[in-house]
Amino acid sequence: MMTDLCSKIDKLAGLEAGLHDKDFLLSWQYGDETIEAVLLMAEVLEGMARSGTSTRVFDTGLGISIFRDKSTRTRYAFRAGCNLLGLMTEELDESTSQVAHGETVRETAAMISYLTEAIGIRDDMFLGEGHKYMVQVSDALCEASVKGVLIQRPAVINLQCDLDHPTQAIADLRHLVKTFGSLEALRGKKLAMTWAHSPSYGKPLSVPQGIVALMTRFGMDVVLAHPDGYQLVEEPMEAARRFAARSGGSFSVASSMGEAFRDADVVYPKSWAPASVLRERTRLLRAGEATKLAALEREALASNARFKEWECTERTMELTKGGSALYMHCLPADVSGVNCEAGEVSASVFERYRLETYREAGHKPFVIAAMILGTRFHDPSSVLRACLERKAVRRANSG
Amino acid sequence: MMTDLCSKIDKLAGLEAGLHDKDFLLSWQYGDETIEAVLLMAEVLEGMARSGTSTRVFDTGLGISIFRDKSTRTRYAFRAGCNLLGLMTEELDESTSQVAHGETVRETAAMISYLTEAIGIRDDMFLGEGHKYMVQVSDALCEASVKGVLIQRPAVINLQCDLDHPTQAIADLRHLVKTFGSLEALRGKKLAMTWAHSPSYGKPLSVPQGIVALMTRFGMDVVLAHPDGYQLVEEPMEAARRFAARSGGSFSVASSMGEAFRDADVVYPKSWAPASVLRERTRLLRAGEATKLAALEREALASNARFKEWECTERTMELTKGGSALYMHCLPADVSGVNCEAGEVSASVFERYRLETYREAGHKPFVIAAMILGTRFHDPSSVLRACLERKAVRRANSG
Amino acid sequence: MMTDLCSKIDKLAGLEAGLHDKDFLLSWQYGDETIEAVLLMAEVLEGMARSGTSTRVFDTGLGISIFRDKSTRTRYAFRAGCNLLGLMTEELDESTSQVAHGETVRETAAMISYLTEAIGIRDDMFLGEGHKYMVQVSDALCEASVKGVLIQRPAVINLQCDLDHPTQAIADLRHLVKTFGSLEALRGKKLAMTWAHSPSYGKPLSVPQGIVALMTRFGMDVVLAHPDGYQLVEEPMEAARRFAARSGGSFSVASSMGEAFRDADVVYPKSWAPASVLRERTRLLRAGEATKLAALEREALASNARFKEWECTERTMELTKGGSALYMHCLPADVSGVNCEAGEVSASVFERYRLETYREAGHKPFVIAAMILGTRFHDPSSVLRACLERKAVRRANSG
Repeated sequence: MMTDLCSKIDKLAGLEAGLHDKDFLLSWQYGDETIEAVLLMAEVLEGMARSGTSTRVFDTGLGISIFRDKSTRTRYAFRAGCNLLGLMTEELDESTSQVAHGETVRETAAMISYLTEAIGIRDDMFLGEGHKYMVQVSDALCEASVKGVLIQRPAVINLQCDLDHPTQAIADLRHLVKTFGSLEALRGKKLAMTWAHSPSYGKPLSVPQGIVALMTRFGMDVVLAHPDGYQLVEEPMEAARRFAARSGGSFSVASSMGEAFRDADVVYPKSWAPASVLRERTRLLRAGEATKLAALEREALASNARFKEWECTERTMELTKGGSALYMHCLPADVSGVNCEAGEVSASVFERYRLETYREAGHKPFVIAAMILGTRFHDPSSVLRACLERKAVRRANSG
Repeated sequence: MMTDLCSKIDKLAGLEAGLHDKDFLLSWQYGDETIEAVLLMAEVLEGMARSGTSTRVFDTGLGISIFRDKSTRTRYAFRAGCNLLGLMTEELDESTSQVAHGETVRETAAMISYLTEAIGIRDDMFLGEGHKYMVQVSDALCEASVKGVLIQRPAVINLQCDLDHPTQAIADLRHLVKTFGSLEALRGKKLAMTWAHSPSYGKPLSVPQGIVALMTRFGMDVVLAHPDGYQLVEEPMEAARRFAARSGGSFSVASSMGEAFRDADVVYPKSWAPASVLRERTRLLRAGEATKLAALEREALASNARFKEWECTERTMELTKGGSALYMHCLPADVSGVNCEAGEVSASVFERYRLETYREAGHKPFVIAAMILGTRFHDPSSVLRACLERKAVRRANSG
Repeated sequence: MMTDLCSKIDKLAGLEAGLHDKDFLLSWQYGDETIEAVLLMAEVLEGMARSGTSTRVFDTGLGISIFRDKSTRTRYAFRAGCNLLGLMTEELDESTSQVAHGETVRETAAMISYLTEAIGIRDDMFLGEGHKYMVQVSDALCEASVKGVLIQRPAVINLQCDLDHPTQAIADLRHLVKTFGSLEALRGKKLAMTWAHSPSYGKPLSVPQGIVALMTRFGMDVVLAHPDGYQLVEEPMEAARRFAARSGGSFSVASSMGEAFRDADVVYPKSWAPASVLRERTRLLRAGEATKLAALEREALASNARFKEWECTERTMELTKGGSALYMHCLPADVSGVNCEAGEVSASVFERYRLETYREAGHKPFVIAAMILGTRFHDPSSVLRACLERKAVRRANSG
């Protein structure tokens, strides 16, 4: 175990992570070595946690989270990731404070950063807004840092915006690496990222966008499928095409779940809203148009309902390679007959892969900790090596 | 002090605590040695805290709390107990996440447990529900642990359910041990656990149930008294009868506060709701029957009002042994003329014992820490001994 | 750096801080050496943080905050200050617990203190209430400590009451010391603490009161200016007169912003409500008089609106010494044309000093940590010296 971790740390030392003193906002802004470094750091951190080695690299320090949408998984993962490194977490509750737009974002960003190492933000509700907000915070921190207001500039970690969900997508990639044995083993594997029916509306685009833009980097054949009208936004699509061309993989768009599932090694059926609906919702919410919002929801649900056959069932799973593709989901899933009448996945398929989806989610605390480690330290490999060498334990030894 | 702590740790080493990798849900599920071990661990932890010795046994790790009812005392005690051992606490706010019933409990239990050592739950509002919910969480954690989803299985700590309130009851037992000198000294002492009048309704049964099921274990003569219709549920009553028979103590039910108080060494007058009302309330809440709920509350308050003479006063205290029984309460108490017109206890009795009730409550953080220590470590005595030997201080020394 | 910190610690050792086992409620209750000691401790803590030295002096322990008003800055500063010393913070949310007035304050104070080192309270909404509440908590802790209920008595730290805002005022003083070079250099400098127009109402008096009562101690010429009807309460005014007389500075009241700004070295233009309005508001809120409250707000806003010329603009700034006085604000400021139509300060003046106000705010976490250090340790200088000598780092070293 120890030897294995050492060799991974050696490998990490050879990578140009390029994250030091930066943020992690959109995965496609970073080179492949950055992604590989985050994967490796997450793997080493998880290995150390399993072997009982403490990875407390901060004696004091804060991790601040800002959640502009509900969250269980990512909220916990951020806290757990911070704690694993020794940071105390606090959530900025905007209802009891004054984070807003424009002038005030700039001010609040400084006010919560004096002794802070990382700021995790979820802002995924409004297409065209979330990423912009994170950039505002990031810019404010740069200014405050350059001008000597801050002792240290905290890293902004994207815990899901309107464009990307990088902690999810990289945790998913860790899951694929673990399932297929290595990053190299993913080459030539087919992954189907498909829309799926849901009786709810307004689900963000960031998961499918993050998946197609990330998984195309490593030689996979990524097929995106969705009904007409459910297109993703252009920026991650463009990234996916570019990465596929460079990696020797491929990226294509299909018009049915079945076509995408055919011979797939991995399927990721998940609902999202049409971009046009999300944009209109942002506009109506701003204008305070309650009646029109209700009408928009009705229309959107009616639109979804036209595509109930986009469900991942035993029948569609049979189309996949050997009938046994890996099923993935970011959770919570809309499971037909369990938490909804007709949803993204049938009960029997979900139940078969349920514990796998828990394992998939289990990588997230380590991916977040890896991002913090990479952004906060000039040479994360030497920091990790020092953790191994000092032999501090995560919990007291007991006979 | 040091010698005293060492001898207690030696005694602890000789007990079969049997808690390792388990939960603490209902005190009557555990043998006497488990209870004794928790008492001893709490005593040692408190002694170390008083002498300034650090008991930080976790370098990193999380304690998650879920409160489905209001709480000041127990919420603080859980946080303080976790912090005493080095765990960072976080509260799962169900309004900003998605813990629900059935399928989702199973999922959420895994999602909040990847790096978690303990999950403290209060779910005491609905008779027939709270304990069931904790068992669901516990089962989900077992599955996730056995199937390798979790690195470690966190312990579920019952911070009050519909059946038991073990952190309160064991803190109360610590208070008795401290007051009377030893666990052995409790043998033959009479404890009156009695209903008392309150102008509020819906108070859970878990405190009286926890008290009668616990205090009968150590040879005390426990008398339960309540008006007709205010019976406790059968499971803890059965446990109380069984423990009394085995311990050489006794357990009986009286029909007046005076009868119970006569020659008592300890009195615990406290209000609770009739089980039938709590069951009906659960049913009506589920059915969303607001009008019927209001009617139920009126009926219940009218029922309570028929028993205003069930108040602990100077006159009833005179009936106790030497007129000076120890008064106990889990707080907050309904004090007549202070926070209500006519309540559980008269102002003068309460004021006389007020600081004693604060001392009683002060054991709770240590009892919770003891439960975590016992459930997380194979050999808590060696963990505690190592804390003593390393001589780390809880706070820096200052000339 | 190291030598510089050592000499400051030596200087600290020579001061009679007089804070050990006390609270920090109102700055004027303490002697000049106490204020100087807090300033020095804050400076040393900040210096250590900048040099990467860990100031973790608590291995475990809690800092509890109670916020009875919205807060971003002070809430963060309390958490960051606690974390810098190793304390885990928790906020007591009164909506999910039972802190109230009278009997219950006494009880809750004990319940949240068993393993707590500091309790930070903001209660600034009701004139005549906030300080009283803190004294109630303080008295309850004294009783619980003297009677042996608590292992240790936590310090109560005033995070803003109706009378004073000492963590703000001392952070402001730190900012002045840093700007002008030393505490001695403030002698003879003119500071204008002036009312300024705001389109909001009900802002507390604690900042101007805290400023005039503190800055008069060190030989500054403090001029307070406000429209008729916006007088401050007598206690801090009396303190300001007393301190000015003793320190060789001066304290006077002017009736226009221009008069106060003339030749000022420092200006602090900030809105507050008339004391009479705040008192009436307290009365009406208690009586539940919603209609009268709305009328009071209308009147108060109309009153404010009569004084729109009380705005800090480029023109008024020209009146100050060399046209370049230091502009100060506790934030958030009402900036004309930015977050309101006509506010306390023009956009161009604010923008010029914006980063300075962030630096001003940046001292607060260290001032709070200094108060905790001073109240919790008999000899803070030896505690700080030990931190320097053990050479523990705040974050892991990285090549």
